[in-house]
Amino acid sequence: MKFYDCQTAPSPRRVRMFLAEKGVELETEQVDLGAGDQFSEEFRRVNPDCVVPALVLDDGTCLSEAIAICQYLEELHPEPPLFGTSPVERACVSMWNAKIEQQGLWAAADALRNYAKSFRGRAVSGLDSYEQIPELAERGRRRAERFFHRLDEQLADRPFVAGNNFSVADITALAFVDFAKWVKLEIPEDAGNLRRWYEEVSKRPGAAA
Amino acid sequence: MKFYDCQTAPSPRRVRMFLAEKGVELETEQVDLGAGDQFSEEFRRVNPDCVVPALVLDDGTCLSEAIAICQYLEELHPEPPLFGTSPVERACVSMWNAKIEQQGLWAAADALRNYAKSFRGRAVSGLDSYEQIPELAERGRRRAERFFHRLDEQLADRPFVAGNNFSVADITALAFVDFAKWVKLEIPEDAGNLRRWYEEVSKRPGAAA
Repeated sequence: MKFYDCQTAPSPRRVRMFLAEKGVELETEQVDLGAGDQFSEEFRRVNPDCVVPALVLDDGTCLSEAIAICQYLEELHPEPPLFGTSPVERACVSMWNAKIEQQGLWAAADALRNYAKSFRGRAVSGLDSYEQIPELAERGRRRAERFFHRLDEQLADRPFVAGNNFSVADITALAFVDFAKWVKLEIPEDAGNLRRWYEEVSKRPGAAA
Repeated sequence: MKFYDCQTAPSPRRVRMFLAEKGVELETEQVDLGAGDQFSEEFRRVNPDCVVPALVLDDGTCLSEAIAICQYLEELHPEPPLFGTSPVERACVSMWNAKIEQQGLWAAADALRNYAKSFRGRAVSGLDSYEQIPELAERGRRRAERFFHRLDEQLADRPFVAGNNFSVADITALAFVDFAKWVKLEIPEDAGNLRRWYEEVSKRPGAAA
């Protein structure tokens, strides 16, 4: 089993945090996204979608998409449980992971990739070239800011995003909050619940990953 | 348990197809998205994100996000299995569901919501108002077209999207292909594998849902 990572990118960080919470180490290869290594012939044979994280199993299956990789690792290493322990809890973890991806992470990615010089002609991840859309960068910023408040409301009466237990939804949320800093978005002053949560989860072993 | 549906929308259709494959019926309420019923005070108390599908459990928990609702229903009604039956198969189903959402469904949604008159000022689902971005409609079209070919490649040497068995990933893919017609995108002539798959899955009981 081999994990393809990029130390500077938010999506593979989700897998690194997950592994750290589980106390698991994997054979890892760094893919330098800044240098375009994801488009090399060699990596395209690993993952034709040209993105990390990717996890190649011993039978040659390539898993990509952070949540699918984490789900697979959860089955191999069930303790501590990070996907919930009852049907309702598992569904809430899955729901919040999806909300954070769509309303948070992808919004912040829109803001960065449609604005930063280094993403010119690469405004969408993957092999195809897409020009930047400045209005979409603005929309992404606005959506990410709004989502800080949505998370703040959610954390008003529960310690973690999906309920009483730390889960992969908190990992996705932490990846979002730290990634948003790349486009100079910080947790708003009045989002006290989100601040409290952020301080706590940032102390966890996985947060440094 | 109560299912909030909208008969004309692609995301709740994923849940309807899933229920039909399971042979399960739920108490259902239609939410008229065209009339703006998702923004009513009443529905905002059900789901503050103002989207369907939503599934309200007997304890009051509101599940939204199609994949989370389907996952919960899978646990209540395990047969026939639609999320895979081994760790690798489950991970492939989860990965393909994510790819189809991001590269297919959301791309087609960008194409529709940033173009159609009926979505002016509502280019993003949810309560906040966002103006349309015509360039994003174009990008969405191009991405959705590209994704037809990605699905076609994936179906070259396997009967279903995630492998040998029909799964929730096929349901998401069918929702994408049919939704793409709304922006006049059809499976390309040369995508023979995708055409073969589409003909087969369109005959299933769930497809009419």
